[in-house]
Amino acid sequence: MKKIKLGIVGTGIAARDLHLPGLLELENKFEIVALFNRTKEKAIRFSNYLNNNPKIYDSYDELLDNVEAVDLALPVQLNYEFIEKALKKGVNVICEKPISVNVEEGKKIVELSRRYKNVVYIAENYRHFSAYDKIKELTSKIGEVYYLQWNLWIYMSKDNKYANTPWRQNPEHIGGFISDAGVHHVASMKKIFGDIKWVYGSVKNITDYLGGPDLLSSTFEFENGILGNYNVSYALDGKNVLMIKGELGDIIFEDDIIKVVKYKDKVIEYYDDYKTHDENSYKKEFEDFYEVINGKENNLGNTEEALKDLAFIEAAIKSNGEKRIYIDDLIR
Amino acid sequence: MKKIKLGIVGTGIAARDLHLPGLLELENKFEIVALFNRTKEKAIRFSNYLNNNPKIYDSYDELLDNVEAVDLALPVQLNYEFIEKALKKGVNVICEKPISVNVEEGKKIVELSRRYKNVVYIAENYRHFSAYDKIKELTSKIGEVYYLQWNLWIYMSKDNKYANTPWRQNPEHIGGFISDAGVHHVASMKKIFGDIKWVYGSVKNITDYLGGPDLLSSTFEFENGILGNYNVSYALDGKNVLMIKGELGDIIFEDDIIKVVKYKDKVIEYYDDYKTHDENSYKKEFEDFYEVINGKENNLGNTEEALKDLAFIEAAIKSNGEKRIYIDDLIR
Repeated sequence: MKKIKLGIVGTGIAARDLHLPGLLELENKFEIVALFNRTKEKAIRFSNYLNNNPKIYDSYDELLDNVEAVDLALPVQLNYEFIEKALKKGVNVICEKPISVNVEEGKKIVELSRRYKNVVYIAENYRHFSAYDKIKELTSKIGEVYYLQWNLWIYMSKDNKYANTPWRQNPEHIGGFISDAGVHHVASMKKIFGDIKWVYGSVKNITDYLGGPDLLSSTFEFENGILGNYNVSYALDGKNVLMIKGELGDIIFEDDIIKVVKYKDKVIEYYDDYKTHDENSYKKEFEDFYEVINGKENNLGNTEEALKDLAFIEAAIKSNGEKRIYIDDLIR
Repeated sequence: MKKIKLGIVGTGIAARDLHLPGLLELENKFEIVALFNRTKEKAIRFSNYLNNNPKIYDSYDELLDNVEAVDLALPVQLNYEFIEKALKKGVNVICEKPISVNVEEGKKIVELSRRYKNVVYIAENYRHFSAYDKIKELTSKIGEVYYLQWNLWIYMSKDNKYANTPWRQNPEHIGGFISDAGVHHVASMKKIFGDIKWVYGSVKNITDYLGGPDLLSSTFEFENGILGNYNVSYALDGKNVLMIKGELGDIIFEDDIIKVVKYKDKVIEYYDDYKTHDENSYKKEFEDFYEVINGKENNLGNTEEALKDLAFIEAAIKSNGEKRIYIDDLIR
């Protein structure tokens, strides 16, 4: 199959540290022919990482006339406008998660992806981690499952590179880090147990340097009836543990190791072949994007799934500690 | 000080396995002079554990005429009636938790305890565990505290002695085990961080042999602003972990060991002198009851505190997965 002429739009941290290492391994699939960044010097600096002298454009419109696909790694509030422009010019899009600043705008992106024949692929790298597929497979070992709990304590110091992005410090996207990072976790949970029916959430604001709330405790129910409890803070440190409880035991995912713990017969099985840190999920998402452009069904970069990821977080925030919100009521 | 003539009313599992071992160590404070049980043979059998030949009565009224205090260890739905009768006859009362079947009836018991001069002491043994005092003291080591989580997986098999009590199999008390055992946990959390403002809860019913729901996930807020998350099941097994998160680290209470974990300087301090299983909290509560009868303020057996313990659980159940309920709205 032929190489796709790709333009990278937004040459910040995500493009450089996350996407580029994957793309450099996919030189037989993508040729990075074009760069655009609002601050042109950043695009020039980015071009130094490449050997093929991509063209640096002064405008996004001009870039669109010279590529087959764009990789949008922009402040999230620009996603809608940039996706629409690309589609109008017949250009395929891969766009960093979250899909949008809120569900209302996300719905418009879903609409765009239905209206235009070109691909809109939301880059949710957690959907490409095989650990969550393995966890899903292992649930058969613990009998009927009743409860999932995910505690994530992702402490970010004042000098964290993401915390210092201006668009993250004064977020236009709902809940700040709670949605920005949170959609990853929702995507993973949905990968294991499917869609979520409703969410109740309560947030706190601990730090003054992380834009928006930085502690969330939420309860939710999967469509299949499993009760969930997702607790996350970007201001507090600690052990990150995903725990799934069934009638015969637990599945525990901690420190990149999956454990199956059976209490009655005291058996603990370890699975350490699913290390998310060793797995290039960004490369996988670009490979998948390539195949989707070439006709494969868009399951892992689907805008509707990305919208539901964000809807979980928006429901948790709008719940405001008071009452649960149904995902269907938000997204329909 | 003189010995108090005590009657034990309800000679079931709690009286035998929990209260009696403590009372036998307090022979200088209490003399068990009287027993009453609806099924008289059980009272006769119980008398075999004692050396002083207590009198076995055919009626509760008759017993009340011959004692200074009663220990009520009855199916919870009988608490109100039995407490009232004792007070009318000028008899002091120690009564097993929960205070009552629901908040409405609990409020009537609080009223009784205000109206009569004799003592009404609700026996909540968890309030007598020193581990929770130690945890409270250690919170100063982790800076400002933001979050508490308690996971309790207290699997009860079909042949569990408590699960087989008829009044527990067809509970008149709200939420079955969720309140019966749950008030212990609420009392402990309140001992650490004080009163609770509101509770949101969602329950599931996993087994058919435990009366009522047997899985609860709840979110709540202490009056001091700390967010809490209490998850408990009597149908699922697992590790019981109390985790308190502050700006500098965590306090973890697990397997009867208190750990202070500081993430930045990687310090872990262990405190293993507060083993709840080695501590005779029942003896302590009877000692305290004795002192309260002799004029000490009733802090640990206070009916108002016991009512608030139950109100947490009732709020969680009535919340019904839909919306949070304020404790004050329930108890006022």
